[in-house]
Amino acid sequence: MKIIVDGMGGDNAPQDIVQGAVQAVNEFHIDIIIVGKEKVIEKELDKYNYPNERIEVLDAQDIITNEDDPAMAIRRKKDSSMVVGLRALKEGIGDGFVSAGNTGALLAGGMLIVKRIKGVDRAALASVYPNLNSISLLVDAGANVDSKPDYLRQFALMGSIYMENVMAINNPKVGLVNIGAEEGKGNQLVKEAYYLLKDANINFIGNLEGRDLPQGEADVIVCDGFAGNIVLKTTEGVAISLFSQLKEVLTSNIKSKLGAILLQSELKSLKSQLDYREYGGAPLLGTQKPIVKAHGSSDAYAIKNAIGQMISFINKDVINIISKNISVED
Amino acid sequence: MKIIVDGMGGDNAPQDIVQGAVQAVNEFHIDIIIVGKEKVIEKELDKYNYPNERIEVLDAQDIITNEDDPAMAIRRKKDSSMVVGLRALKEGIGDGFVSAGNTGALLAGGMLIVKRIKGVDRAALASVYPNLNSISLLVDAGANVDSKPDYLRQFALMGSIYMENVMAINNPKVGLVNIGAEEGKGNQLVKEAYYLLKDANINFIGNLEGRDLPQGEADVIVCDGFAGNIVLKTTEGVAISLFSQLKEVLTSNIKSKLGAILLQSELKSLKSQLDYREYGGAPLLGTQKPIVKAHGSSDAYAIKNAIGQMISFINKDVINIISKNISVED
Repeated sequence: MKIIVDGMGGDNAPQDIVQGAVQAVNEFHIDIIIVGKEKVIEKELDKYNYPNERIEVLDAQDIITNEDDPAMAIRRKKDSSMVVGLRALKEGIGDGFVSAGNTGALLAGGMLIVKRIKGVDRAALASVYPNLNSISLLVDAGANVDSKPDYLRQFALMGSIYMENVMAINNPKVGLVNIGAEEGKGNQLVKEAYYLLKDANINFIGNLEGRDLPQGEADVIVCDGFAGNIVLKTTEGVAISLFSQLKEVLTSNIKSKLGAILLQSELKSLKSQLDYREYGGAPLLGTQKPIVKAHGSSDAYAIKNAIGQMISFINKDVINIISKNISVED
Repeated sequence: MKIIVDGMGGDNAPQDIVQGAVQAVNEFHIDIIIVGKEKVIEKELDKYNYPNERIEVLDAQDIITNEDDPAMAIRRKKDSSMVVGLRALKEGIGDGFVSAGNTGALLAGGMLIVKRIKGVDRAALASVYPNLNSISLLVDAGANVDSKPDYLRQFALMGSIYMENVMAINNPKVGLVNIGAEEGKGNQLVKEAYYLLKDANINFIGNLEGRDLPQGEADVIVCDGFAGNIVLKTTEGVAISLFSQLKEVLTSNIKSKLGAILLQSELKSLKSQLDYREYGGAPLLGTQKPIVKAHGSSDAYAIKNAIGQMISFINKDVINIISKNISVED
């Protein structure tokens, strides 16, 4: 197995990307191609010990930044690490592509270069959503802001296949994000999607309200990309603001500081449950080859985990299973 | 001033509603009409001391429950406390209506019985959103799940007027819920709404992402009712789940229990910041007379605060100001 890694994407590129790739090679015993400015990547690689034959560098002199317009960058920056990496994936030089770069560009590149699976209308971004008991998968996390009801059915099916195979959840429960629990609730989009999900070959448990999401009632959370992005970022924002208020409380006087010391390890473990770095990256679902988006602020540990997730994505043959099931239902 | 209160709406009706109304009379020195089953309400009133001439009971033998279909209930349950109360409001028997009952029915009743202000396309529910520093007002909180761009402009304008007058926020900052900060982001609805908000006579500060909301970057948060409901309920869900995890952590062993005792009062004050009961109810914006929706699980304290909020809503002449400004812009 050979995984292509975007060496120049993300806030901590190339240092943490290269370090994470080295850690993945040493831990998972796979081959990696790092795409990016050859000399820069090689200089980083020189810092580490690893089986040298397992990592090669594919030169790409340009970089797509977060300020670039996604579709335009993919079309014009032909020598960027992302475009060169996606081309290498398309041509079969590697088995999967991991990038912490511009999300929109990665989505556009997935659609334009790697292309969709036959029968899939739109590729979706699937993001891990930590809940009280474990994790759910939220699809779509922001790729498709104007969706049709049938896109949501496809997101549900692809998310269900991913959770069953990569995350080993048996018969994953699928819920639809809505403003009420009852059938018939919601806007036009989710009202129509509800009936499509009911008839789909998935374990559909019905509508989920915002307050149900952190309870972990569903393994797969389905919504359009606009709602999905709002759910994810509101969750992040509320967690950050509560922890910052908690921190203030814990340092407000001597008594509370003493309490905080006694609670230190417990509070740390609570915070780590919400740490995106633990959960690898966000898979793109619906492209012809596996693509995983790592968080933009990924450190080496997060990159290593994203590569680990990619290994299961490839090993479990998720693309083929999606391809077969999408065609069957059409 | 005379405020009409729905005596039978909400989880704790009629006991807590009547008690809250009595508290409001004693604290604010206003007159109240409680609508509901006369004998039941009077039996509750007998428990308390208050200036008897200040509270009268308007008999209504039927009740709209949360299981009732909103529009149907308003049309058919003509002798329900909600319909009788809204009619009394329309006829000028009282100056405002407060209910903790079925939200959808209250919205439908507001539109069908009390009617919209001329120039307002849709009445919106405006909900308090607690943030790190104080509170924001979120409009629409769930009344209009399929909105047009111009509805959002009207929500922004009405919310801005409410915050400026009732909450005494000078030149309130208005933000649009979106999936990115830049102009041009989002789905079709918010893309078009963005330009309408930019040209409106409000202090528009641009797009807000989900993670900005708890930071209190805007005084008025504008979105369609589907997104608004998701923001509110996700926020509630995340806060509940974090507090429940925190509670587990605080009682996990003797050391942490000791820490928890030292932090008790600080944690309590943190939790009370998120307590909806402190903030009164959610005003309906766009109807010809003031209507406030109290939380379904309101206790007497929350009802008293919702009545207090209604007093400002009436005193500040918000309806007239909305009416004048909506017409000017059209």
